[in-house]
Amino acid sequence: MAHPPHAYLVGLIGSGVDPSFSPPLHMREAAAQGLTYVYRTLDLTRLGLPPEAVGDLLGQARTLGYDALNITHPCKQLVIEHLDRLSPDAARLGAVNTVVFTDEGAVGHNTDVTGFAAAFRRGLPVAPTREVVQLGAGGAGAAVADALLGLGTDRLILVDVDERRAHALATELTRHHPHARVEPAQPDKLSALLPDADGLVHCTPTGMADHPGLPLDPALLHPDLWVADIVYRPLDTALLQAARAAGCRTLHGGHMAVHQAVDAFRLITGISPDADRMHAHLRELASAES
Amino acid sequence: MAHPPHAYLVGLIGSGVDPSFSPPLHMREAAAQGLTYVYRTLDLTRLGLPPEAVGDLLGQARTLGYDALNITHPCKQLVIEHLDRLSPDAARLGAVNTVVFTDEGAVGHNTDVTGFAAAFRRGLPVAPTREVVQLGAGGAGAAVADALLGLGTDRLILVDVDERRAHALATELTRHHPHARVEPAQPDKLSALLPDADGLVHCTPTGMADHPGLPLDPALLHPDLWVADIVYRPLDTALLQAARAAGCRTLHGGHMAVHQAVDAFRLITGISPDADRMHAHLRELASAES
Repeated sequence: MAHPPHAYLVGLIGSGVDPSFSPPLHMREAAAQGLTYVYRTLDLTRLGLPPEAVGDLLGQARTLGYDALNITHPCKQLVIEHLDRLSPDAARLGAVNTVVFTDEGAVGHNTDVTGFAAAFRRGLPVAPTREVVQLGAGGAGAAVADALLGLGTDRLILVDVDERRAHALATELTRHHPHARVEPAQPDKLSALLPDADGLVHCTPTGMADHPGLPLDPALLHPDLWVADIVYRPLDTALLQAARAAGCRTLHGGHMAVHQAVDAFRLITGISPDADRMHAHLRELASAES
Repeated sequence: MAHPPHAYLVGLIGSGVDPSFSPPLHMREAAAQGLTYVYRTLDLTRLGLPPEAVGDLLGQARTLGYDALNITHPCKQLVIEHLDRLSPDAARLGAVNTVVFTDEGAVGHNTDVTGFAAAFRRGLPVAPTREVVQLGAGGAGAAVADALLGLGTDRLILVDVDERRAHALATELTRHHPHARVEPAQPDKLSALLPDADGLVHCTPTGMADHPGLPLDPALLHPDLWVADIVYRPLDTALLQAARAAGCRTLHGGHMAVHQAVDAFRLITGISPDADRMHAHLRELASAES
């Protein structure tokens, strides 16, 4: 008999991850590829575990035959000390969202960076990226900002209500991208910044089902601006609706969600998934809850 | 979208279990049933863990999303103190080979008992079972003896080089099957016991690939005796070859191996597997290594 194909076992560690779309996204694509693939949520909230438990869970997952883990809030930084190696993206960002167990140990990657870059190239392929305003300088914002700088943005303004956070991220990004100008700014400067910007990227929770609303005054949107949201539940946020009404080209958060999963799937299996099929599936999952 | 079907995650805890046939047996049958099903070996030898680690592994498996575990040597008794409930078979025997995680907790079962009974009914359906001689009074022997008494054996002779072990098992079985005669005996009594016996069951490791040989003098075999072996690697042991040469009906150990897996699969999934298909698969696995 031929050696049976490997059966994959993958988990997602984070707080409140039980409703994540990652299990169905990964498992349906794997089934379409003819792979046996189980994807489990290891929800710290449900398990009553603190974020620092990520190290123990990582070790247990390895012992119990897991091939890989996705890591999300609030463990993307905490997990690093428990890993054996980091990819360049993960090392530069100091954040890991995918861990693959290999013969060389636990290797950390960051497919949020590669996922946003791929999403942008596919969804807004001809959009200028010279000057971009980004709302939100948290963990997701750091990955998106790094991706934008990799895409050629040479002036990136980081707007966050937490002034120190915006400043710290700008300093860190400038260190890794010395030819770009990365500047922190406060929200009251948006009216001065947006008229000259090519694009606006939104990386705060505003617009999610449990944080409804708009992250800025929609009167600031103008037709020469593209608008990308990383919120994807719902896919069509109030921001994107306002942007379309203002004549902006838009990119919904589902693109990044799919492409970070595409890249994780490829790292885990060595097989390139069908991004269009995963995108169609994500739309189906998102529409089922709207 | 319809709710996606459950994806199953199952493990096997024991020493030296990495080469077990259970993963391919379960996973191929699950694939044929259209189920997503990952089955991992948690090999204490490979992991460098003592048998007492079964409790920790059980808890970790539950945390990490396992649905069920098979348990084998040397943990079938040790696991019991970590369970919330036991099936009647497991409670009577004091041994568990299948743990299912349910809303009511971790429930222990023993499909060695039901597996041998099913194997016997299918493989030797018209064989008399009034008086049976059993070689081996260890853990597997206890399950087989219990199954034989459930099949109507009213005189069961337990032959073991360890006199105390045979005596202890006889006492224990008599307590649960008060209408049967269960007697310990030493190997030198076989020549007096076998002429009157209906059948001989072999439950020692002799005949396995790394314990080659015969567990008794083949001159004691006679055509009125059926012979059942529980060794299944290889399927055709020296004992079964000698038994056929002596004109005995025989039952190889693959029947029990398949039926304990059939019963475990049903407990885990609620779905009755195709026992004939699993049997064909076991023969394929066994022939690939002979």
